[in-house]
Amino acid sequence: MEMWDLVVIGGGVGGCTAAIYGMRYGMKAAIVEMLAPGGQAATATTIENYPGFPEGITGPELARRVHEQALTFGVEIVSAEATEIVAGADGKWIVKTSNGDLETISIIIATGAYPRSLDVPGEKELRGHGVSYCATCDGFFYRAQTVAVAGGGNAAAEEALYLADIAEKVYVIHRRDELRAEQYLQKRLFEAENIEILWNSVIVAVEGEGAVERLQLRNTQTDELRYVEVQGVFVAIGHIAKTEWLADLLEIKGGFIVTDELMRTNQPGILACGDIRDTPLRQIATAVGDAAIAAFAAHKYVAEWRAERASG
Amino acid sequence: MEMWDLVVIGGGVGGCTAAIYGMRYGMKAAIVEMLAPGGQAATATTIENYPGFPEGITGPELARRVHEQALTFGVEIVSAEATEIVAGADGKWIVKTSNGDLETISIIIATGAYPRSLDVPGEKELRGHGVSYCATCDGFFYRAQTVAVAGGGNAAAEEALYLADIAEKVYVIHRRDELRAEQYLQKRLFEAENIEILWNSVIVAVEGEGAVERLQLRNTQTDELRYVEVQGVFVAIGHIAKTEWLADLLEIKGGFIVTDELMRTNQPGILACGDIRDTPLRQIATAVGDAAIAAFAAHKYVAEWRAERASG
Repeated sequence: MEMWDLVVIGGGVGGCTAAIYGMRYGMKAAIVEMLAPGGQAATATTIENYPGFPEGITGPELARRVHEQALTFGVEIVSAEATEIVAGADGKWIVKTSNGDLETISIIIATGAYPRSLDVPGEKELRGHGVSYCATCDGFFYRAQTVAVAGGGNAAAEEALYLADIAEKVYVIHRRDELRAEQYLQKRLFEAENIEILWNSVIVAVEGEGAVERLQLRNTQTDELRYVEVQGVFVAIGHIAKTEWLADLLEIKGGFIVTDELMRTNQPGILACGDIRDTPLRQIATAVGDAAIAAFAAHKYVAEWRAERASG
Repeated sequence: MEMWDLVVIGGGVGGCTAAIYGMRYGMKAAIVEMLAPGGQAATATTIENYPGFPEGITGPELARRVHEQALTFGVEIVSAEATEIVAGADGKWIVKTSNGDLETISIIIATGAYPRSLDVPGEKELRGHGVSYCATCDGFFYRAQTVAVAGGGNAAAEEALYLADIAEKVYVIHRRDELRAEQYLQKRLFEAENIEILWNSVIVAVEGEGAVERLQLRNTQTDELRYVEVQGVFVAIGHIAKTEWLADLLEIKGGFIVTDELMRTNQPGILACGDIRDTPLRQIATAVGDAAIAAFAAHKYVAEWRAERASG
């Protein structure tokens, strides 16, 4: 079996950055990627806050460029789904995939996360045209407009508070009659003059011609239907990371991988970077920072692994 | 006095990124910048490892683009030197500068760091043409070549070990007869087959026509002069961050600002990002990740500051 210094699982911006740094550190590195390259960034219509592109860049274009950059440094792409990580001989790891096994000294997991969707008519069609999953990314487009936030947890409360600084009016649409968000966030929500909470309400449809114009709501107590006019809706009902397959191996918190500041998990030689981490902020900028540190720490681990065996 | 939500000190890639995120969070933000924008990145000839530029990008061009991006979002540029941070009224801060004072709720310090130089003939002239200060950044250019590392501490040892995976031969040039690097690094240096340590030696000149060809060394015990032929020299005698002016206010470690994982210093509302932090890796990728997180945390701080005063 061919042996790798580093196997990166996930070919999004974070995974490709980890591979770029890994190759440049002289490691023999492969990326295991299930689908077309790009990750979550590839779904973004326009990215305005990734440093270096003053006119903005589309998600697919940024993903393509970073993927090309990884290929420039000679990384090997394995088109497969990683299905299991098991301990190999002599402190190595085996990454089992749908297309064979890879033996490696270190692993960086960078399969990302995706926002949970409402799963209602119009949501998919108007994504990027008023339907957003990230106020940090897209809130700026809604200066002096009316927007809604769907959800009642901390993330929804924080998104609403951020948007309240930018938009003219913010509705928070929550299915219950009380919020799950922490008290200090609730207090701030209630005090904000331009935030209105629509209790016992769920969005049943997102409507508009080419862009979001209104939401159809259903009252969860009375089943009554009504419309609210908004130019944007931020879906903040959580992120989902594919971590079940790692649950027996790694420390997972709330569905995300726990790491230290060097991106190391609780298993020696296994690191994680980007959105799949238990992290306060999910951005391309933070994913690339994480990835550089993960590759740095992986290289250090591989060098020590080799040194121990050479002298042993 | 005009009041700001956020004053960013330093207009390099990190500072501009913090400002971009800050503006997009709806904060009223200014950048205090002493010199031309760009920071340390502006000194880099070619940057190959910043994700998004598969053909590489020059440092000044990347710095220009990120600066332009910050201006796009309406950040105010104050051309001045920040000279002191003092406590203002009601939990605010005053940033004293050579061009007046700024009152602000939060501050992000992003003035970076620069590598200590040898200060010998040829070093400045051949910078970017064989003289480098960062193996992570430039090591890749020296595949199968001969390089030297100047220094004897942990950084020099780590640079040499990284380069040993890429280059054919690595000299470590150290002025004393023993290293300051930690024992496990020393052990690995001594065991590496392609690393040779030149003890009691200092570089007195860097020579070559348009690119580094050789180093002139002086033996610190005998004063004997000799030449070694190399294609590259990595100067690894430390980084210098301008933190003296902050020493009475902030926790400083080894000349760098100590922060938590949200980039917060020991003072409420004062954050730091990028190379000026006490951090294991100084890269543009890590600076932009830091900066996004710092702006996120600053915005949270400012929102809470306002909420406390509104309800108080």
